[in-house]
Amino acid sequence: MSDQVKVRSKLELSDERAVIPVAEIIDLVSLIFENIGCSPEISRQVAGHLADANLCGMESHGLMRTLQYVEQFESGYMRPDVEPEITTTERGATVVDGNGGIGIPAMRLANDEGCRLAREQGVSAVAIRNVGHTGRLGAFTEAAAYRGFLSICFGGGGREKWRQVAPYGGRKAMLPTNPYSIAVPGGERGPMMFDFATSKIAGGWIYAARSAGARLPDNVLMNSQGVVTRDPEDYFRGGAIMPSGGHKGYALALAAEIVAEAMLGPTETEGSWLLLTLDTSRYREATTMQRIAEEILDELRNCPPAPGFERVEIPGEREREHRDRTVGSGIALPRQTWQQIRALAERLGNDRRAT
Amino acid sequence: MSDQVKVRSKLELSDERAVIPVAEIIDLVSLIFENIGCSPEISRQVAGHLADANLCGMESHGLMRTLQYVEQFESGYMRPDVEPEITTTERGATVVDGNGGIGIPAMRLANDEGCRLAREQGVSAVAIRNVGHTGRLGAFTEAAAYRGFLSICFGGGGREKWRQVAPYGGRKAMLPTNPYSIAVPGGERGPMMFDFATSKIAGGWIYAARSAGARLPDNVLMNSQGVVTRDPEDYFRGGAIMPSGGHKGYALALAAEIVAEAMLGPTETEGSWLLLTLDTSRYREATTMQRIAEEILDELRNCPPAPGFERVEIPGEREREHRDRTVGSGIALPRQTWQQIRALAERLGNDRRAT
Repeated sequence: MSDQVKVRSKLELSDERAVIPVAEIIDLVSLIFENIGCSPEISRQVAGHLADANLCGMESHGLMRTLQYVEQFESGYMRPDVEPEITTTERGATVVDGNGGIGIPAMRLANDEGCRLAREQGVSAVAIRNVGHTGRLGAFTEAAAYRGFLSICFGGGGREKWRQVAPYGGRKAMLPTNPYSIAVPGGERGPMMFDFATSKIAGGWIYAARSAGARLPDNVLMNSQGVVTRDPEDYFRGGAIMPSGGHKGYALALAAEIVAEAMLGPTETEGSWLLLTLDTSRYREATTMQRIAEEILDELRNCPPAPGFERVEIPGEREREHRDRTVGSGIALPRQTWQQIRALAERLGNDRRAT
Repeated sequence: MSDQVKVRSKLELSDERAVIPVAEIIDLVSLIFENIGCSPEISRQVAGHLADANLCGMESHGLMRTLQYVEQFESGYMRPDVEPEITTTERGATVVDGNGGIGIPAMRLANDEGCRLAREQGVSAVAIRNVGHTGRLGAFTEAAAYRGFLSICFGGGGREKWRQVAPYGGRKAMLPTNPYSIAVPGGERGPMMFDFATSKIAGGWIYAARSAGARLPDNVLMNSQGVVTRDPEDYFRGGAIMPSGGHKGYALALAAEIVAEAMLGPTETEGSWLLLTLDTSRYREATTMQRIAEEILDELRNCPPAPGFERVEIPGEREREHRDRTVGSGIALPRQTWQQIRALAERLGNDRRAT
């Protein structure tokens, strides 16, 4: 590993971003997690997951999270020295217990087990509990869809810690941004996959707008009096993000909150999740399903665009196209993020190990 | 049955509506379906389902559908003389085949079978195919939730016949309004349940606005050039309903379309459906789950309202409150609808039978 972490010499600079070869940044970030006490396997898995989010263009779920995760390991919010494990409730339900560790390996384990059970039984339900951040949800559902499964994942239960979103008709932040992801084996270019917050914007946007001194889009945030505002500071003065689609996003978020807290709870660490996996080949042969899916998707891709749009996209394809376009050249990190990750690596002893 | 159909004498008139006792209108509408060739059991089930939708305040899915269903039976679009049946695919998946009949008894059969299988296995998947209109989806998911199940139902596959909604970024109607319903065993006042179209408005609103000469709300409809319009006539000139929540509603609709058409298809009659049922008691005792759910729901009910709202509602409670308030006094039908139903009953021979 020592050679591979000499990243500085390979830096290409492009405007405000540093472009780092993929293998190198995965090595560096793996080492950070190892130095904080994670197993080599989990370290590499988490680093690879985060790097892939960057490659997909999902920077909010990418390598910048390294800083947050390390902080959460150091504060005791998450434990580095644990492994997720498959457990069974007294009445026979499958639950992956994250043991208070990071959620990414727990979600991966749940996904593997969910696919295995669905192959056996046709359909499976796996709950995921007692975990920190689970990374980019769509990475897991999409992986299952590539294997021929319909995958549905949603979670919540964090409302005591993450009151960010007002219920529809209310003016006080009471619910987290409880996301949903569904992936379906798709056409010729891979699964159709979505992964969205049930709020109009994800919480990270508020912080990003605040730190950039920018205003938010219209109609996504309300102040403490329930009046729509574009000033991110209003959020910190008792405001709330609005639910996506009004009562619809609110209903989706609330269903996830009841499932996570009342059915799977009590919530420990960050939240709880439910993963449903269905073997599509029980219904139709994969080749037939793919052919029909491609007909549907192709028709949509050829829909004339509305004013202001270049084209109609298939959910999930933008991420894959971004990956294909960038994986050869490397990951373009904001220079400041990259400096913070390097500083972290040095503080945690990377330099010592790497020599 | 002869005495029970003398409805005219019991009419109470209130403004533009006729208020008809529940048992009487169910009897009358049952007889309509019997006279068209449905079995007495299915006739009564469908009439009861429609009446309940009116009691819930969901007029769009209520007794006015009697007129549509009869037209669809008479045109051959649906068959009256069939029963839904449970079948199994070669590879072992459970599919309720509606045999081209009305979807309400098929959905009920699927729900019963889904709950039975979930009680046995923890989780179940039941597909519903080859059916006409399935009624108010939320009635089925809610019934499962009352029995302790998490119930998730969605469907689509009708895009060849029902191109109503533009994909996000597009300006041409390409997808149906593919709805989703989820119900979760809830607090003291019953399950939390939602049932919504993935488009900004259901298709029926366009017809209602057209026939009333009214304009639609802002930002729900685009004309053939993709420009937002409030004129319902623009829909019939090549316009499209917009997806709810932009790319989110579009993604939900597309997932349902691929599942229905590529996984469960080819679509016959109206569309295909997937029903997922999970036994919540495998995770936590019903009493505990209910107590925690009630804590969450109670907190939301007490959220201070936003400007223009009276209170925060729990999805599903408005329908139950409406039912509790109206079931004693009867169903208030628009006078014209009531006259049309009576005329239909007379044409189909009700008067002859009832004497």
